[in-house]
Amino acid sequence: MIVFSNLCPHFQRVAAIFLFACVVVNAGVIDNRIDKYVDVHGNCAVPTKLLNEIQSYQPIVNKIAKEILNGNFTGDTWNSLSEFIDEFGPRFSGSKSLECSIDYMVNKLKEVGLENVHTENATIPRWQRGYESAHLVEPHEQNLPLLGFGFSVGTPRGGIIGDVVVVESFDELDRLSDDVVHGKIVVFAPEWVSYGVTVQYRSKGASRAAKKGAIAALVRSITPFSIGSPHTGMQTYEQGVAQIPVAAITVEDSKMLLRLYRRGKRMTIRLKMEDRNLDPYDSRNTIAELHGRTQPIDKKVVVVSGHLDSWDVGVGAMDDGGGAFISWKAIEFLKKMNLRPARTIRSILWTGEEVGIVGAQDYQRAHAANEQEEFNFFIESDIGTFEPTGLDFTGNADAECIFKEILKLMAPLNATEFAKPTDGGPDIERWTKRGFPGASLLNKNENYFWYHHSAGDSMLLEQPQNLDKATALFAACAYVVADLSIDMPRDIQ
Amino acid sequence: MIVFSNLCPHFQRVAAIFLFACVVVNAGVIDNRIDKYVDVHGNCAVPTKLLNEIQSYQPIVNKIAKEILNGNFTGDTWNSLSEFIDEFGPRFSGSKSLECSIDYMVNKLKEVGLENVHTENATIPRWQRGYESAHLVEPHEQNLPLLGFGFSVGTPRGGIIGDVVVVESFDELDRLSDDVVHGKIVVFAPEWVSYGVTVQYRSKGASRAAKKGAIAALVRSITPFSIGSPHTGMQTYEQGVAQIPVAAITVEDSKMLLRLYRRGKRMTIRLKMEDRNLDPYDSRNTIAELHGRTQPIDKKVVVVSGHLDSWDVGVGAMDDGGGAFISWKAIEFLKKMNLRPARTIRSILWTGEEVGIVGAQDYQRAHAANEQEEFNFFIESDIGTFEPTGLDFTGNADAECIFKEILKLMAPLNATEFAKPTDGGPDIERWTKRGFPGASLLNKNENYFWYHHSAGDSMLLEQPQNLDKATALFAACAYVVADLSIDMPRDIQ
Repeated sequence: MIVFSNLCPHFQRVAAIFLFACVVVNAGVIDNRIDKYVDVHGNCAVPTKLLNEIQSYQPIVNKIAKEILNGNFTGDTWNSLSEFIDEFGPRFSGSKSLECSIDYMVNKLKEVGLENVHTENATIPRWQRGYESAHLVEPHEQNLPLLGFGFSVGTPRGGIIGDVVVVESFDELDRLSDDVVHGKIVVFAPEWVSYGVTVQYRSKGASRAAKKGAIAALVRSITPFSIGSPHTGMQTYEQGVAQIPVAAITVEDSKMLLRLYRRGKRMTIRLKMEDRNLDPYDSRNTIAELHGRTQPIDKKVVVVSGHLDSWDVGVGAMDDGGGAFISWKAIEFLKKMNLRPARTIRSILWTGEEVGIVGAQDYQRAHAANEQEEFNFFIESDIGTFEPTGLDFTGNADAECIFKEILKLMAPLNATEFAKPTDGGPDIERWTKRGFPGASLLNKNENYFWYHHSAGDSMLLEQPQNLDKATALFAACAYVVADLSIDMPRDIQ
Repeated sequence: MIVFSNLCPHFQRVAAIFLFACVVVNAGVIDNRIDKYVDVHGNCAVPTKLLNEIQSYQPIVNKIAKEILNGNFTGDTWNSLSEFIDEFGPRFSGSKSLECSIDYMVNKLKEVGLENVHTENATIPRWQRGYESAHLVEPHEQNLPLLGFGFSVGTPRGGIIGDVVVVESFDELDRLSDDVVHGKIVVFAPEWVSYGVTVQYRSKGASRAAKKGAIAALVRSITPFSIGSPHTGMQTYEQGVAQIPVAAITVEDSKMLLRLYRRGKRMTIRLKMEDRNLDPYDSRNTIAELHGRTQPIDKKVVVVSGHLDSWDVGVGAMDDGGGAFISWKAIEFLKKMNLRPARTIRSILWTGEEVGIVGAQDYQRAHAANEQEEFNFFIESDIGTFEPTGLDFTGNADAECIFKEILKLMAPLNATEFAKPTDGGPDIERWTKRGFPGASLLNKNENYFWYHHSAGDSMLLEQPQNLDKATALFAACAYVVADLSIDMPRDIQ
């Protein structure tokens, strides 16, 4: 039984009931730009005065870099993260570990003297992994390492046994007659293309197979590389379609089953999954601030964020302990360096990200009434904290021109890379996709999906110097944006 | 229950009873060298006649390379290996899969027309993995992926629970007072140095911990790199020391436990292992030959070999399906090319390698009576069949000089690297350590231990072109050695 002790009180939640009314009221107030920073040819044309202002932050960025990379705070982010990760391990939504880890964080954030430390409730769907096993019975006996996908139903008590159909794509499945698939276990063994492309077999595989009459679906783990580890993750059942058990198998096993199927071999798998869905519960986003010098006059805050919850395999150091901790440490170190910018910097340590990004969803709803006045800029890290190289920007052309100038200040961190391939990050894109400007950490995460949602997500992936650089980058970027004489330009939809 | 059906008859086994008598009889007959191939300065001085003879094989090596790399046999080794691996999966000693796979191989070897296809019995110790689990209870709840080591005893029924002591070395363990260790679970969390160095914690950890009163030992998996996979392997209990359960945990978890221990945290682990030792049984080495042109006059054979058995996790494609199959295909392709050398080439597909190299042990004992007359040269592949680069030689200085000349012929295979860091390989070193000359496959196996004895040992590690090159290299090397006008020089101890 899971017991939630010491649930912190619920602060400052803005009632979601105001949400729709306020969006309408604010609909016309979308442009707070002071100037245009792009010329008629589409080139950046930031006025000299603002350029000079941005450049004047170089000594402060240098100081931040020095103190964090080679000073009083060196190694501190890794040490704190390691204590946290080792103390609480996996922090899956619905687990005692997650809620205890949130209590721990609240205490830590208060201990180091941060301001307005509190939590805000978020209602989180709950799913519990039970005993899971898959066993190949024909043509030979072999245990198939297995991880059920989030919100999969379990098998009937006692498990199921079924012959196997293997496909490499939804198209291939659709070309099969229902007779071939009916009553079978469908194995999806697609080639790895990219996470964005290949993940569809995890997200939608169960319902696609169920529509053809399958009794369960097993999906190649969504990773380009494997040492026999299954990778879990979320999936969603289509409405009106039978809900069948769905789980990851290893890349190795999916390829073996594919070869056997192509050779016309009969394969039988015995599958047992005691997973189950439970009632939603209230978890908490964790918030701490470094109040701006001009508080409460200028209220627009800069958010730095990562999520505290993790999957139930691995310990969520990479996804996303590192992101959460650089978001905490950035403001702790600024405060300790007596670097208080004009605007408030708010660290948000999201909950419920892995089970549907529901912590950010509830937070956004609760703050929707006044969000245009409340938020200036959103920063997130949720794609690893390997060696940072720069920031991934989202925003309009004016904000981009300013942001590029800010990034030049990050030369002491060797992290001046500008990119804009994404829409922010999973937690902040709720704002950035609507026009709020924001940025995400760019880092040398080429092998991120090797470990993602698997037992391989551990502290071994986190290096002290990488975390120092990432913390310094977040601190410096948040400071400059929060201290600038103008709000970041935006076009909110 | 394991059933052994269709056990093949036991052919041609030379009674082990002759072993000791014959070693004595042959003790003085150790030098069959025709000439000395090293000058007084220690430099090679192979006579021109022999050099010319070796160089005359270049067209044959070229033909072998062409036919296997880019001809009739291209891709055949991978295809055959894949069918075998997918059909039988893991082939652990004592399993039905291993014995069925041996029957399959006997049929295949006969089907392709090889000569003297038969098996020879070997008595194999038997151990059965049962249900295994480790669960961290304090300071947080976490499943710890686990793999018992070979011949570990199980826990008492119902499992054990114990506090944890973590050490990085045997020295550190020895420095602890027995009081600290008594009744605890000892975790060995050494740094990776090399397989040869770090494997001692797997081989000897249980008894070292038991001597201090530990109730179980958990050992960092013997790999430099991990994605949350445990790696199994053999261990041996010291005589007269209490036998305690011993298993691998992941690198990630061993490091976490070490950090917690260094911080003085109390840790508790619940361990359950239903492993058990069973009576030995007769398995079989599988043998096929390409008879020499001069058979039976010149009886000294060239052995090419790899082992068929595997661990019970992964499917033993890398360890050692690849090695066994290039040893088979080398002689099959020579025969199909009508390349029959003067001496016989004998493929031996060993059994029981993983559980103590017992297939080779029994074979050597059975053939000991006449081994000096029977064997000319031993070749093995048991360290991966990634891209071949050359051969690892064992033998005296004269043989080395000749072998280096033979290796030069392998230029069309881009596999002319000469090395001699080992004593042959696990199965053939029973001969090579006593002075019989031999060689092992050198290949680009830098990441071999990432996969070794884990669920990551799969067909994904085997590439058709690498297997083609390895088969061609074995075929060419075995052919030249088997056809040369002289036996390979040796100094048998």
